[in-house]
Amino acid sequence: MAEEAFGIRAGEVAVALPEKFDAGVYFIGRIHTPWTRREDGPKNARESDAVCTIEVDPRYAAALTGVESCSHLLVLYWMDKSRRDIVLQVPRHYGVQRGTFALRSPARPNPIAMSVVRLMRVDGTKLVVVGLDCLDDTPLLDIKPYFASTDAVADAVVGCHMERRQ
Amino acid sequence: MAEEAFGIRAGEVAVALPEKFDAGVYFIGRIHTPWTRREDGPKNARESDAVCTIEVDPRYAAALTGVESCSHLLVLYWMDKSRRDIVLQVPRHYGVQRGTFALRSPARPNPIAMSVVRLMRVDGTKLVVVGLDCLDDTPLLDIKPYFASTDAVADAVVGCHMERRQ
Repeated sequence: MAEEAFGIRAGEVAVALPEKFDAGVYFIGRIHTPWTRREDGPKNARESDAVCTIEVDPRYAAALTGVESCSHLLVLYWMDKSRRDIVLQVPRHYGVQRGTFALRSPARPNPIAMSVVRLMRVDGTKLVVVGLDCLDDTPLLDIKPYFASTDAVADAVVGCHMERRQ
Repeated sequence: MAEEAFGIRAGEVAVALPEKFDAGVYFIGRIHTPWTRREDGPKNARESDAVCTIEVDPRYAAALTGVESCSHLLVLYWMDKSRRDIVLQVPRHYGVQRGTFALRSPARPNPIAMSVVRLMRVDGTKLVVVGLDCLDDTPLLDIKPYFASTDAVADAVVGCHMERRQ
């Protein structure tokens, strides 16, 4: 436990992480957004209609075949500016203690974010999308087709957030 | 390119991967399912009402605070049995060539799967859920609350799959 460590707010709790990683990830591209500082970004992706660009490493160009037929995509990216050892957090906009796995905060053991985006167009290895709220130059991990049949649950509830992220 | 390499079907294309990883992940738990061989699993998660168990490493127990108030969760896990270098694939059930980023196949540069699950109950550091289709003992990467407001897109379309994963 290191509750007083740098970067932790009152009420937040950190744990000792394992000594080594179990697997490695490749950054397969970069995400370009209008936001260079965390305080400039939208509180969540639905608050912004900003058009963002996903630049995929040309190495993986062929892997984009068929992506243009998707109206929406799942985008996984790496939030590399965050601490990974915080298990209880006190988000500023809630003011109460929450478990990391009950939050979408970038601070988590594996700082992998998932956003659903609307695909506007594909331009070579660039995807023009709406629905991201990450910082400019965020590393890209994966792109997947969004299937309403398995991914959309319209009546899902998050009780401790009063049914929605604020 | 290594189109004839072991584990590649006719029409599939692999690329050379980068020489080293850009970041590391921790396995934060294990997923227990009824399936020990890929050929026994359901074709997709909606085909199965199987009850599965997510066992979180006790190190992260506090991070589960509040998770019990979620009706649905996003579960990220590591599909460690898959090749990572295939950019064009020929899934058996389609029979035609598709880009990796237009598929939910486990073979991808970063073999991170995302499933939406229904949370039945929390029992200490075990989560009992419905909606997974992975193999028994799959490494867990992350658990996130599912927000209908940002994650549910009921009218999303995947043209090249005729609107749904079969």
